[in-house]
Amino acid sequence: METWDAIRARRNVRVYTGQPIEGPALDRILEAGRRSPSSQNTQPWDFVVVTDRAQLQDLSKVWQGARHVANSAATVALVAPMRSEESQRGWVRYDLGQATMSMMLAAVDQGIGSAHAAVGDQDRVRQLLGFPEGRFCASLIAFGYPADRPLRPIRNPNRRPFDEVVHRGRW
Amino acid sequence: METWDAIRARRNVRVYTGQPIEGPALDRILEAGRRSPSSQNTQPWDFVVVTDRAQLQDLSKVWQGARHVANSAATVALVAPMRSEESQRGWVRYDLGQATMSMMLAAVDQGIGSAHAAVGDQDRVRQLLGFPEGRFCASLIAFGYPADRPLRPIRNPNRRPFDEVVHRGRW
Repeated sequence: METWDAIRARRNVRVYTGQPIEGPALDRILEAGRRSPSSQNTQPWDFVVVTDRAQLQDLSKVWQGARHVANSAATVALVAPMRSEESQRGWVRYDLGQATMSMMLAAVDQGIGSAHAAVGDQDRVRQLLGFPEGRFCASLIAFGYPADRPLRPIRNPNRRPFDEVVHRGRW
Repeated sequence: METWDAIRARRNVRVYTGQPIEGPALDRILEAGRRSPSSQNTQPWDFVVVTDRAQLQDLSKVWQGARHVANSAATVALVAPMRSEESQRGWVRYDLGQATMSMMLAAVDQGIGSAHAAVGDQDRVRQLLGFPEGRFCASLIAFGYPADRPLRPIRNPNRRPFDEVVHRGRW
């Protein structure tokens, strides 16, 4: 898909067909995340990819807004190091956001929808995913083929108007 | 450009030809940012776009790593609200990272390179851009046509190996 179409076609998809994501398609999504830029090229991320149905169902309970994870074809958990300085914590989050967007667009490109979820219960998610102490799970990204309609460029996205968001030269 | 090519072609570009970015191309970059997803669709961003050479030169001095801003064709300053809770501050950064990636890929799609910079001197950047109290400038994204070589998919990016970053099922 053309890049500009993929950017305009991305939307939150929380209801999925039962179709699994084949290995190469899933790996391409993960590769997009791996290639993302990060502050000082620190790459402060690990991706735990879950496709087992029972594990996805358990994972969907770590936050009230994660229910769609249960029926996703695959969910990627973004795991990152805890940092002592808030400035560093901010860059970790920024970089995770960049990796998220790369993965979501690599998904759209393949007709695959996605939706984020936050994580409430860190102890439980650590137990489910087995990541080491000193790290946390910042977010979950659920992927799957949309059950409603295919991903196509959205004409009028639900966003603040362009002229409100964009300032020329000065605010 | 195909999405998968754009994702693989993105790299930091800090040396630019003198060619300006035409209005429609720049607006497409900004539109990509505006369309980005955000926590609860809060859209915690304003984009101040700078193309004036003298202003770019001033802006390039707000951090030691922002020197490339001086010669960019355009630089977008990401301005965001200050939040009292750290959890909210984290999501603001995450969302700014998503908007950043969208803009950078919309740039690649048009043959335009980019490179981030952090901001050291908040007072100075506020003075230069005129944004209100209660907000801060999280980062600058410089854009311009690459002076070295065109943007093409990178075969072996300087990143941690795929099998180190990706964990299947459990860490």
